[in-house]
Amino acid sequence: MDTGDVFDPNCPTRVVLDRIGDKWSVLVLLSLDDGPLRFTELRTRIGGVTPKVLTQTLRSMELDGLLTREVFAEVPPRVEYTLTDLGRSLHAPLSAVAAWAEQNVNKILSYREKSA
Amino acid sequence: MDTGDVFDPNCPTRVVLDRIGDKWSVLVLLSLDDGPLRFTELRTRIGGVTPKVLTQTLRSMELDGLLTREVFAEVPPRVEYTLTDLGRSLHAPLSAVAAWAEQNVNKILSYREKSA
Repeated sequence: MDTGDVFDPNCPTRVVLDRIGDKWSVLVLLSLDDGPLRFTELRTRIGGVTPKVLTQTLRSMELDGLLTREVFAEVPPRVEYTLTDLGRSLHAPLSAVAAWAEQNVNKILSYREKSA
Repeated sequence: MDTGDVFDPNCPTRVVLDRIGDKWSVLVLLSLDDGPLRFTELRTRIGGVTPKVLTQTLRSMELDGLLTREVFAEVPPRVEYTLTDLGRSLHAPLSAVAAWAEQNVNKILSYREKSA
């Protein structure tokens, strides 16, 4: 196939959609847009993420080709995460979704209060 | 607050991001862009979704003010789901993410094969 079809239940595009829609993947991707970061820097930037979940998210994004993990032979070893070209191409769509969420969070909260 | 901040761990924007990033919410929202649909029509359009999960997704999107559920007094009763203005405003960002997934699914699959 040349491109996927999100409306085909058997198309792996759905798995990709699930992965890139994950909140932590979105926050990692947006964080790395300004340049490479180390694990602790990423953790501080994102906030509220456990080391375990951040490690899993980074590993999954590395396997998907969205970022690279580079180890520098220093003492202590320095590990940096950098977006690939593929990862950078996802920045615009994901930042639009994040911006929508920031702009509309109050509307959604007031809808929820009305329904409660 | 006027707008949210996805990088604030205490901001409800993160919850919103989690909800709108959900694969089924994305597919429901894209499906309803052409106009209202009934439950069975939605289920057929999306494909591969169980009635239980579709019901939960629709209920959650209704509570968030993204769609309305209207019951018509017919025999058997007709129930239609329609995007609200808020839901329609989310169409552009989500369709950009879905288009990215469709365009890049093959690259991601080949990265995964290389890593395996």
